[in-house]
Amino acid sequence: MDLTQSVLAGDRLALARLLTQVENDSAVGRAAVDGLFPATGKAHVVGITGSPGTGKSSLVNHLTRSFRRPEDQRPPKTVAIVAVDPSSPFSGGALLGDRVRMRDLSGDRGVFIRSMASRGALGGLSRSTAAVVNVLDAAGFELILVETVGAGQSEVDIARLAHTTIVVEAPGMGDEIQAIKAGILETADILVVNKADRPGAENTERSLRLMIEMGHPAHSTRVAQPTPQGTWLPPVLRCVSTSGEGVESIAQAIVDHGDYLQKSGLWRQREYERLKTTLAILVQEALIARWRSQVSEDQIEEWVVRLCERSATPYEVVKALI
Amino acid sequence: MDLTQSVLAGDRLALARLLTQVENDSAVGRAAVDGLFPATGKAHVVGITGSPGTGKSSLVNHLTRSFRRPEDQRPPKTVAIVAVDPSSPFSGGALLGDRVRMRDLSGDRGVFIRSMASRGALGGLSRSTAAVVNVLDAAGFELILVETVGAGQSEVDIARLAHTTIVVEAPGMGDEIQAIKAGILETADILVVNKADRPGAENTERSLRLMIEMGHPAHSTRVAQPTPQGTWLPPVLRCVSTSGEGVESIAQAIVDHGDYLQKSGLWRQREYERLKTTLAILVQEALIARWRSQVSEDQIEEWVVRLCERSATPYEVVKALI
Repeated sequence: MDLTQSVLAGDRLALARLLTQVENDSAVGRAAVDGLFPATGKAHVVGITGSPGTGKSSLVNHLTRSFRRPEDQRPPKTVAIVAVDPSSPFSGGALLGDRVRMRDLSGDRGVFIRSMASRGALGGLSRSTAAVVNVLDAAGFELILVETVGAGQSEVDIARLAHTTIVVEAPGMGDEIQAIKAGILETADILVVNKADRPGAENTERSLRLMIEMGHPAHSTRVAQPTPQGTWLPPVLRCVSTSGEGVESIAQAIVDHGDYLQKSGLWRQREYERLKTTLAILVQEALIARWRSQVSEDQIEEWVVRLCERSATPYEVVKALI
Repeated sequence: MDLTQSVLAGDRLALARLLTQVENDSAVGRAAVDGLFPATGKAHVVGITGSPGTGKSSLVNHLTRSFRRPEDQRPPKTVAIVAVDPSSPFSGGALLGDRVRMRDLSGDRGVFIRSMASRGALGGLSRSTAAVVNVLDAAGFELILVETVGAGQSEVDIARLAHTTIVVEAPGMGDEIQAIKAGILETADILVVNKADRPGAENTERSLRLMIEMGHPAHSTRVAQPTPQGTWLPPVLRCVSTSGEGVESIAQAIVDHGDYLQKSGLWRQREYERLKTTLAILVQEALIARWRSQVSEDQIEEWVVRLCERSATPYEVVKALI
């Protein structure tokens, strides 16, 4: 049985091995992602983003527990967690969060956890995250939680992979945050004020509500899209992720948003956009690979030297090289 | 006189106009960047990065003032500030910081300030930042300070544009920071503990020193490269950017690092790598543009629909399309 079949059969060790191949972008990994593609398209992909220190990891832990052992009528779901750390491109190391989590959720076969670090390639992280998400989808996980650290371009790129995007804020992170978050907020389907037991939580909640109102609907294409099934106005939910208080409502909001996307037809639309982006990236890579096979490293280096000497301009070099 | 010539002649209005063309990636903008290329390669490019709330903007203000009116023997330098906000890809808006700054430094023809927001394209921000930096270099600014907000992939990409990278930390930003910053720290040539008058500053300084030691030299290719001229060990400098305390030593460290790069030959090496990256991006764009002109939007959409239906796999589609 090859790796792909083992993954489809539910073999965890095979899954972990395959994900390593995918992260390394090996030929085996690429072929497997392609082979598994027909089995994808069933998972609900949820992106969780926010500044460092907002408590995303413990929120993701509690959410996972809530989806595994719901307190209310919701049926349990299998959960895969992808923790992405875009700030470690050089070390290739990932946060230790997965170990801590492992202890907490270990022994549950309905949970799978994977940490990823960027390998430094331009846009490489979004591509490999997309591939990892697809493999987990094919492996049958119903809910895929993609957790990203930071507040930059990579988070936005990763948000594009998700059906539902959650932005986590916490009180007292400095006022600069408010200005910075404007762009990220526009991608949010659900807003969370974590550490809601701390001073300033009401202020944070108020500014988030204000920002949503400001962004509604003229400034944004994703927030509050009116559909025949009505409009989704991103809820602002409070929680204390260390104790788990408020996490149930967030889990419910995720389910509600999934239902909303399905009923409104937006799910299919996001799926279309997602696959179009994936295709664009693959075409780009294929074009570069083909070009690479036609040009030698020596040739490229010669031209870079001429650029260094300013004896040729970049466009002259491009013209000569392709 | 065309835009390019006006920029070379020191026309500020022409410079601002050209930068807009460059940001919009227009044909005029592209041609101008290429036309100005032979005039580039003189500026010292300094990247300033760090989490939100660490006070980067006021540090950049004080640094600019210090370079314009040095307290010691250093000759004054002309300064261009590029403030990059990678988290606003949807709004296209930039931080208001430039207005505040303008008031402070206005009237000085030796200072030019530009705010940039991402336009949402994968890697687009690094490309347009590189182009803007080149134009400012050609326009004759001796020092270019590129300030980025956040802690993600885009910051690292932008760090690659810089000769000297400064990472700014502040006390009391939560312990998660320490883990996250490991990757960013490896890019740092100078480390700054801002808000050094606040409690916890000593702790922050201590952990930074510890991380440098840990990263030296086996874990990193950039930190502490031994050369015939010796080794650069990233200094950890304290400052209070609201009052300007400690800013002079940071300005001096920037000058020292520039001298070190020149003497050790690393300046040329970084220049080579920078131009190689630029070339790779341009080749990539040219290949895609050529492909785009050969394939219709209808064809692409047809294939994306087949992907949505799972009746073709991504690689089958790529094969069919190129």
